[in-house]
Amino acid sequence: MSHTSREIQLASRPQGDPKPDNFRLVEVEVPDPGPGQLLVRNQWMSVDPYMRGRMNDVKSYVPPFALDAPLEGGAVGQVAASGDERFSQGQTVLHQLGWREFALVPADQARPVDTDLVPGSAYLGVLGMPGLTAYVGLLDIAQLREGDAVFVSAAAGAVGSAAGQIAKLRGCWTVGSAGSEDKVAFLKEELGFDAAFNYHDGDARTLLSQAAPDGIDVYFDNVGGEQLEAALFSLRTYGRVAMCGAISVYNATTPPPGPRNLALVVGKRLTLRGFIIADHFDRFPDFAREVGGWVAEGKFRYRETVVEGIERAPEAFIGLLEGQNTGKMVVRVG
Amino acid sequence: MSHTSREIQLASRPQGDPKPDNFRLVEVEVPDPGPGQLLVRNQWMSVDPYMRGRMNDVKSYVPPFALDAPLEGGAVGQVAASGDERFSQGQTVLHQLGWREFALVPADQARPVDTDLVPGSAYLGVLGMPGLTAYVGLLDIAQLREGDAVFVSAAAGAVGSAAGQIAKLRGCWTVGSAGSEDKVAFLKEELGFDAAFNYHDGDARTLLSQAAPDGIDVYFDNVGGEQLEAALFSLRTYGRVAMCGAISVYNATTPPPGPRNLALVVGKRLTLRGFIIADHFDRFPDFAREVGGWVAEGKFRYRETVVEGIERAPEAFIGLLEGQNTGKMVVRVG
Repeated sequence: MSHTSREIQLASRPQGDPKPDNFRLVEVEVPDPGPGQLLVRNQWMSVDPYMRGRMNDVKSYVPPFALDAPLEGGAVGQVAASGDERFSQGQTVLHQLGWREFALVPADQARPVDTDLVPGSAYLGVLGMPGLTAYVGLLDIAQLREGDAVFVSAAAGAVGSAAGQIAKLRGCWTVGSAGSEDKVAFLKEELGFDAAFNYHDGDARTLLSQAAPDGIDVYFDNVGGEQLEAALFSLRTYGRVAMCGAISVYNATTPPPGPRNLALVVGKRLTLRGFIIADHFDRFPDFAREVGGWVAEGKFRYRETVVEGIERAPEAFIGLLEGQNTGKMVVRVG
Repeated sequence: MSHTSREIQLASRPQGDPKPDNFRLVEVEVPDPGPGQLLVRNQWMSVDPYMRGRMNDVKSYVPPFALDAPLEGGAVGQVAASGDERFSQGQTVLHQLGWREFALVPADQARPVDTDLVPGSAYLGVLGMPGLTAYVGLLDIAQLREGDAVFVSAAAGAVGSAAGQIAKLRGCWTVGSAGSEDKVAFLKEELGFDAAFNYHDGDARTLLSQAAPDGIDVYFDNVGGEQLEAALFSLRTYGRVAMCGAISVYNATTPPPGPRNLALVVGKRLTLRGFIIADHFDRFPDFAREVGGWVAEGKFRYRETVVEGIERAPEAFIGLLEGQNTGKMVVRVG
């Protein structure tokens, strides 16, 4: 027996901003699982900024997406049929074959998740890769210390909102930036940021120095560009930057200039360090224990922006790059 | 009794490139040393790139030079009269009151140096602050490992020529850049660099990728600007950058754009770390043992560009920023 499934394929590589016609909705037949496979009916799929890089045909830390093939990414769904004795029908699993209704998943690449306490979508956000990214970026890359003043950009996003709260719960002072008044209110009122600003309100250097007049020790960089430059001005001696992403330049067709004040790295003895979360999956148990504990205790907030329907996944992705989400952007597939 | 001494004062703060009239030669009377003081007749004085920053009236890691007062910096001279029992007349000492013929030095700030094996000027270069800077920058900041491919910019300068040789003697492959054909020959033929290029010969990215076709693991950055951008392109995964200085922008009056490819730091998991040698004086004994040993064994080459006469010290400094030196630029004071 086979299963009719809709999936989103990459029809063409975006030049600059991705457009709806870079994507194609296709109906395919998915067979029953063979030995060692699971047929998963996806309930949630993730759209993440890093996917933009994979849409370019360039060598990077992950191979590019193939044209005329389904996109991939984090997804959570229920096992519809199992070809592996470790999994049974009805079980909820996390895997990496999103962008489709039915996925034929190698059982070794699926992980059971517990949906008693949190919805399955949480494993794509606060308890998943974005949460782990925030955890590793702060603790391991930026070497967070109690009492640090921490600046997080894109702070209302999935990674940023986790980073701000981890820093706060670890005894730090936090300042976040986001792209709307509503998001700024969310940062201060729901996530407990000590200060926050809307980066559309002026030049980033002025806004940050007003929000954090005593300077910062750590910058968790999700955006690059002007806010990185502002952070370099505000960083104190021995400050650290965890470079997680540069969403401000992902769609750039010509390379934008870097920060004009990079020479400050010398005099201030700064450390800028880039990281890719795939290098740090060994930290998952620590992360799950600490952040999972906070979530269970109700100390940790998370919000999701839900787009309904697999056919709207391209729209969700495009909206993500435009900052239309608050918290994790997910697509409810079915 | 007092001693007539000529000294160089800062007459005005340079705007952009320093000019001779930013400096003033003044004759002063220096008294005999009081208790705990030494009267030192300077033989050698150092001009170093970091001094350019101190000529600006901005807060930095060292306070700015005062106007209408003598400049300061490393110097080596003979004790002409001693007010401290630990020092005797005729002894050669290293101290920080250069830019003058006679210096009244607090004995606690003077260090005896041995001129049997090397001339006193060596303690301003290969066995002094520039040599230590190279040592700490490579070993501690860039975490040098045997087998690394190491790129050094301004490689014919005091710091760069030490860095290249330390890397080589530690079992690394080395590529250096410099600003003339003579310097490139010096790098390859005298200092043992495996590859070298003249950065005037084209764009830095192309030149570096031709000189180091397999990429680099470590970049010892003395210049910033275009060569930093080139290094980011050439760095392999987990590469490290020791940011020591940015001579290419020291005279800039408007901030130059930073590297357009800084986002590569994320995907390549790079670490960029700035440092100031004053934080690392505790490494001096290790440095003196290792590099001093190489110098004593004749394994370590150093060259000096000597400018004669205190009155020509401004010219030496201006020439340094223009790259007129090969190896350490020093002024023979008397």
